[in-house]
Amino acid sequence: MYRERNYRLLIQYDGRPFSGWQRQKNGLSIQECLEDAIQQVCKNSGPVVGSGRTDAGVHARGQVASVRMTTRLKAGELIRALNSILPIEIRILSLRTAPKDFNAQTDAIEKIYRYLIQCSSDRSPFSPWYAHWISHKLDIDNMRKAAKHLVGTHDFSSFMASGSSVKTTVRTIKSISIKHGGPMVSINVTAGGFLRHMVRCIAGTLIAVGLGKKSPEEVKDILEAKDRTAAGPTAPATGLTLMRVVY
Amino acid sequence: MYRERNYRLLIQYDGRPFSGWQRQKNGLSIQECLEDAIQQVCKNSGPVVGSGRTDAGVHARGQVASVRMTTRLKAGELIRALNSILPIEIRILSLRTAPKDFNAQTDAIEKIYRYLIQCSSDRSPFSPWYAHWISHKLDIDNMRKAAKHLVGTHDFSSFMASGSSVKTTVRTIKSISIKHGGPMVSINVTAGGFLRHMVRCIAGTLIAVGLGKKSPEEVKDILEAKDRTAAGPTAPATGLTLMRVVY
Repeated sequence: MYRERNYRLLIQYDGRPFSGWQRQKNGLSIQECLEDAIQQVCKNSGPVVGSGRTDAGVHARGQVASVRMTTRLKAGELIRALNSILPIEIRILSLRTAPKDFNAQTDAIEKIYRYLIQCSSDRSPFSPWYAHWISHKLDIDNMRKAAKHLVGTHDFSSFMASGSSVKTTVRTIKSISIKHGGPMVSINVTAGGFLRHMVRCIAGTLIAVGLGKKSPEEVKDILEAKDRTAAGPTAPATGLTLMRVVY
Repeated sequence: MYRERNYRLLIQYDGRPFSGWQRQKNGLSIQECLEDAIQQVCKNSGPVVGSGRTDAGVHARGQVASVRMTTRLKAGELIRALNSILPIEIRILSLRTAPKDFNAQTDAIEKIYRYLIQCSSDRSPFSPWYAHWISHKLDIDNMRKAAKHLVGTHDFSSFMASGSSVKTTVRTIKSISIKHGGPMVSINVTAGGFLRHMVRCIAGTLIAVGLGKKSPEEVKDILEAKDRTAAGPTAPATGLTLMRVVY
């Protein structure tokens, strides 16, 4: 029997081949791939709503989306059917029915992003493609000191893609943890919401601190400057992964 | 001062974009990339001799090559110059002068190949690209029992690419170890020399044993059949990596 239901999807993707999450005229988006696959399998379906848009080249290990589908297939059958159509760079990890009013975007409480860096003198062909490679060591203690200035509620204008238009540039960062093991350093940022390029601006600035180009104390001044040019460069998309969305 | 010297190179590569080690008319080889880079940097140079040819799509973490070069550059300068020209998929890890008569091919005593398998119900976008993915679990104990029949000196006709012409199909396998951790299973084969596709034929057969399609005892019969069609399928190139060459 056909029935329209609301579904919640947990999705992984390698962002490299895509022009980002959001459907657009030029370039293939993750949203478009998902919507096309769902249309092939279901009688009727609505738009796929993601917890948020990820930029071109940004990866996800735990993106969440909601979508209405009219189908006779059970969850297990749906997931197999969709994964067999989707490009290998996109995998649906789980799929289950959700309350009628569940919306992956507006119901998201917080998101956890990871920015991964590989510090080694030479890049190896076996280096993980989802890390940003730099040839120098980073001062982790100084990066942690700098990160403390960013935690809390602030105007993050200095850490936003220039030219963005948003109602407010105030956001609340719940935590930033910096972990390291071997040549890998990860910057983990948890917040209710992010401005455009915010995690990559933060990562670029913390890398500048780790390299000794900026002092930890300067990060406080950068925040107060409310000026994009005050912060470090935007770190490349390849190091960024949306890890988890909390509802 | 320019001087001709014989050099020994330790090389890593991601085999995916290449048509194999050996220079050929159609397709880009690793040997061609190395020889072209060396010609750009050195006054004179000879052919780059690898410890052995790896097939299209096969990777290396420890390929060794010898080459004569006439240059004023020191080893450290040479390695930086060559790595800056080479595609990112090929990296020279070390480079040092070698005795005049050192030949990476004929002086090799043994080689260690690893065949890596990821066993998980679904392939993730973050699965390592240098592993062969299968959707079922493998019976490691049975694979180890089967591998024991292959160790030693045997006629490996059943484990050779059909149509190969070689003087002798007898080879000596020193050891096969099978390790596993999480979803990953590695088959590590050490031998003085290998026939064409030998490790991939062995891997394909051991996977068939691991999946219960063949019994460990059948591997003995396959060896004795001296017939390629008796063994399991040739496992895909992507799982195979040349790990180390012993001199």
